[in-house]
Amino acid sequence: MTSDLERQLDFLREIDRLKSIVRLSPLIDRSRRENSAEHSWHLALYALVLAEHAAGNVDVLRVVKMLLIHDIVEIDAGDVPFHLPATHVGQAERERLAAERIFGLLPEPQASEFHDLWREFEVAESDDARFAKALDRFQPMLHNAATDGGTWVECGVTLEQITTRCRPPIEGGAPALWEAAARMAGEHYRNRPDEA
Amino acid sequence: MTSDLERQLDFLREIDRLKSIVRLSPLIDRSRRENSAEHSWHLALYALVLAEHAAGNVDVLRVVKMLLIHDIVEIDAGDVPFHLPATHVGQAERERLAAERIFGLLPEPQASEFHDLWREFEVAESDDARFAKALDRFQPMLHNAATDGGTWVECGVTLEQITTRCRPPIEGGAPALWEAAARMAGEHYRNRPDEA
Repeated sequence: MTSDLERQLDFLREIDRLKSIVRLSPLIDRSRRENSAEHSWHLALYALVLAEHAAGNVDVLRVVKMLLIHDIVEIDAGDVPFHLPATHVGQAERERLAAERIFGLLPEPQASEFHDLWREFEVAESDDARFAKALDRFQPMLHNAATDGGTWVECGVTLEQITTRCRPPIEGGAPALWEAAARMAGEHYRNRPDEA
Repeated sequence: MTSDLERQLDFLREIDRLKSIVRLSPLIDRSRRENSAEHSWHLALYALVLAEHAAGNVDVLRVVKMLLIHDIVEIDAGDVPFHLPATHVGQAERERLAAERIFGLLPEPQASEFHDLWREFEVAESDDARFAKALDRFQPMLHNAATDGGTWVECGVTLEQITTRCRPPIEGGAPALWEAAARMAGEHYRNRPDEA
């Protein structure tokens, strides 16, 4: 076995741990919460299915790669729920260290390629990253709408907070998806005016 | 919302159910069994990381697409463990019907594209599909080797059965991975001569 292959297999064994990082979002059948590995699988499918709705001219393989690796840093840094901003303190630094350690398990040039893709996703300035980020914000909205509010209810989020937090990334990467998301959220809060 | 987007979102909601299809394979930390959605995520990363070891000239995006969708039919058809051949009876027909129903939720041309990719994976005659299939056979061997035998022990499989069943698909799609897998399996059975 070449040393490169050994390092690749070490990385693939290590990332198995992402299956044990549990997010706040429920599965649509509400049987349990979603983990970050299956979330990443779902998002990659979102990219394949919804690519035509991207705002920019996107390279689908790059978007899929970003989504497949974007949460791997949570193996060390943990997941911080989007609608609980107090948990975000210090997270950027924890994720930076995690990216160095985990992507560093790979041989070059893969280590650098994955590291660069992860950073590109985080900064979200390229067309590919803006679309990927839009999907990462859109998918939980679809789950919340399908589960009577999901993390919106659990975190006590208002419709205004959702709009402030989710509209820029989703509309910036996929305008038609923001339209759909806003309609779903609007419908949820119309039925529960005391939560809005 | 366009009718096409509605159908795409219906499909994306429906496939959430793949997260509840539990495979026989353990997670590497043995905390529980793997589900088919996180398994598909893991395999897509195998494809990204190990593409250089493919036997043929592969299109990584097509391989990743195949791996992301290859188990979706299990939502209707269930998972049948590779090393329990008795469970395979009738599975091809169950999966054929499942593919029609689930990929048929998508608008055209996506429905046909996904359906065709799934069939190509199943037949495993193209370079892309042979590499994808090799990874689908290789990943559980890595898990078994990392968990003191995993499904090899659970299903009472001999080293000869592993070689008969796994060598052709893995060696055909990625010879270096078969070499690694054979070494791992050999090591497991060398330490447990009574199981070989």
